[in-house]
Amino acid sequence: MPYYIGDVIRDEKQLIARTPEQFREQGVDARTDVRVEEVDEKGRTVRVSRGDPVPYDVLVLGTGTVPLMPGIPGEDREGVFTLKKLGDALRIKAWLREVPCKKAIIVGAGFIGMEMAEALRRLGIGTRICHRGKLPVNRWDPELAKTVLEELGRHQVEFEMDVETRAIEEGREHRLRLVTTRGDREADLILLAVGVRPDAALARQMGLPLGKSGAIQVDFSMRTSREGVYAVGDCAESFHRVSGRWVNVPLGDIANKQGRVAGANIGGGALHFPGIVGAQCFKAFDLEMAATGLDEREATEAGFHPASTLIWGNAIAGSMPGNSRLGLKLVADRATGRLLGAQAVGKIGAVSRINTLSAALWAGLTLDDAGWLDLAYAPPVGGAWDPIHIAAQALRRSI
Amino acid sequence: MPYYIGDVIRDEKQLIARTPEQFREQGVDARTDVRVEEVDEKGRTVRVSRGDPVPYDVLVLGTGTVPLMPGIPGEDREGVFTLKKLGDALRIKAWLREVPCKKAIIVGAGFIGMEMAEALRRLGIGTRICHRGKLPVNRWDPELAKTVLEELGRHQVEFEMDVETRAIEEGREHRLRLVTTRGDREADLILLAVGVRPDAALARQMGLPLGKSGAIQVDFSMRTSREGVYAVGDCAESFHRVSGRWVNVPLGDIANKQGRVAGANIGGGALHFPGIVGAQCFKAFDLEMAATGLDEREATEAGFHPASTLIWGNAIAGSMPGNSRLGLKLVADRATGRLLGAQAVGKIGAVSRINTLSAALWAGLTLDDAGWLDLAYAPPVGGAWDPIHIAAQALRRSI
Repeated sequence: MPYYIGDVIRDEKQLIARTPEQFREQGVDARTDVRVEEVDEKGRTVRVSRGDPVPYDVLVLGTGTVPLMPGIPGEDREGVFTLKKLGDALRIKAWLREVPCKKAIIVGAGFIGMEMAEALRRLGIGTRICHRGKLPVNRWDPELAKTVLEELGRHQVEFEMDVETRAIEEGREHRLRLVTTRGDREADLILLAVGVRPDAALARQMGLPLGKSGAIQVDFSMRTSREGVYAVGDCAESFHRVSGRWVNVPLGDIANKQGRVAGANIGGGALHFPGIVGAQCFKAFDLEMAATGLDEREATEAGFHPASTLIWGNAIAGSMPGNSRLGLKLVADRATGRLLGAQAVGKIGAVSRINTLSAALWAGLTLDDAGWLDLAYAPPVGGAWDPIHIAAQALRRSI
Repeated sequence: MPYYIGDVIRDEKQLIARTPEQFREQGVDARTDVRVEEVDEKGRTVRVSRGDPVPYDVLVLGTGTVPLMPGIPGEDREGVFTLKKLGDALRIKAWLREVPCKKAIIVGAGFIGMEMAEALRRLGIGTRICHRGKLPVNRWDPELAKTVLEELGRHQVEFEMDVETRAIEEGREHRLRLVTTRGDREADLILLAVGVRPDAALARQMGLPLGKSGAIQVDFSMRTSREGVYAVGDCAESFHRVSGRWVNVPLGDIANKQGRVAGANIGGGALHFPGIVGAQCFKAFDLEMAATGLDEREATEAGFHPASTLIWGNAIAGSMPGNSRLGLKLVADRATGRLLGAQAVGKIGAVSRINTLSAALWAGLTLDDAGWLDLAYAPPVGGAWDPIHIAAQALRRSI
């Protein structure tokens, strides 16, 4: 019988998570609101914080990530949140309902910071981002990241750069005060969104080998190095088809795929997880930001000799109405002409280009391929020469 | 010195075509509003309908296509148009300005028919499409083509199927009367949009070999079989990377690419036109229709053993607001699992999927690849499982 041990939290509409009853209807014994204390590998049981030990023949670790914390005094105060699980989101929503919340501070400027800035602004809450760096979303080239900064500004999100947090104290005008290297800032809610790391505590306890990424080492069948033990999702590694290395990219689509592969193999099927190319995106207000493959630093680390170009073009034909300005950066290998990575930003069409280029990366195509790809052309959806063609041909000429 | 012989027509805003003066500024001698009567290959000159013969060392044929005509009495009447060149569009616009035009009939239901139906409806003109077949845009699966029919209906375009035209006569209530196998229809404008064929008249006169498609045979450098004679654009063939055959696909992006390849090679460079995969799209009102690769019939003709699936999914995550219903059909080879073609329809995201799959076709990927492609995931731009994954995995299981 399959056992599930983990969180089960209903949202208000009961749409998202399954209840223990729903699990049972599907033949799964769910132990919820318990913590796994230890895996007894000899006895093939899992000791949990409440109730009888749970027996197993096959064990799947899907322990996810834990949010990074700045490690400052007061970071555990009421009104200070991280956003990792459904429960975190529900707690934030409850706080916003209960407290008159006029001002919020987001510490960190990654995906979660950007998406929460939008969510808070849509509720009419004054929102400030405090960030250690100079620009948000450091995955993207500074020239592209600047457009996010402009988009935040257009939506009255204050962005404070080069700032380090020191402490969180009780506030005077608002609930909380964030003490920083650039002065004190008050708010009714503080979201700490400075990143996550794989939660490999249980795996470490079991002596399972972890990769350089800190995530659990797995093979193409999602097996760990221990017989009968699988790992999937944000706590596990994936093979990066461009760098040829095993990496940890904690994203929901990858977790879904890994889960399906592990499940099929456990059930006696034969599925192979062929890896990733690093495709990722988010939407901040009206802007699509998308990236795939390697940036120059990662490419150099993987032994490539990267060259890059960044162009501004149009997602749809210039003769069509509307602003479709699209920024596209390509990274390629000087030695082989192989496409290594891409980054895009625009109100429309950025994700579309990155997905096309992700398929190109998947197949190991070169700039000669990317420069002449046959793409569906019609003025309302693109120009005769797509930004992909223009960037790839420009980069090809330069190397 | 480069010579250009061809149409030069200014639109009202003088934005589109170059004038002879503009050509001359760039060092090109333009002979406009003349017809090429004959190519004297021994004398290396082109005899034109007006003025001195034009000498050449290298000759580029870019003769384009000619619209197919139904061949019925009255098809040359005033108010009856085809739409192939800029001049045709200007003549239609002039006619709409001069004549009180309340009703229009479009004969044919391909790309041009769909796009002109939208343009005419936006001017408030009652628009009817008369089509020989049962559904518009026969490139797409009937189940997908039906959504176009619904979109036409939503925008008050009347669609008449299974109808053959017989004659165009003078009308009573309107300028013209279209006599059909299903009765007479009156209108102030009739657009004949039943397709085009390559204009290979000059090539035929020169004895250049034509392909099965009726277009001029070329190589990867866009050279015809005659030394110093190139052919590019809608009059020339392209290598289809999926079928492995030389085909004629008269689309503007392909013509652009071929022109660049020929120009570079004539100028002493070295460029190669690597061919096409058949990507194409159009927008009809709010609907994106896109397709790439081969359909079942073409796949069978090329020696594959096609299998297909058609699914309905969402272009963005189901949890996001808005209608993003997306229809996606995939065709693959039973023998090898190789992806052969795709068709998509939806208000958003159809072109994006087809471009991603076009890159996959370009690289010769299989359903196993397409089912696990790493695509940029975020709820506002797609689900964790994209319709591409769902369709590819479903088709993979079925073969």
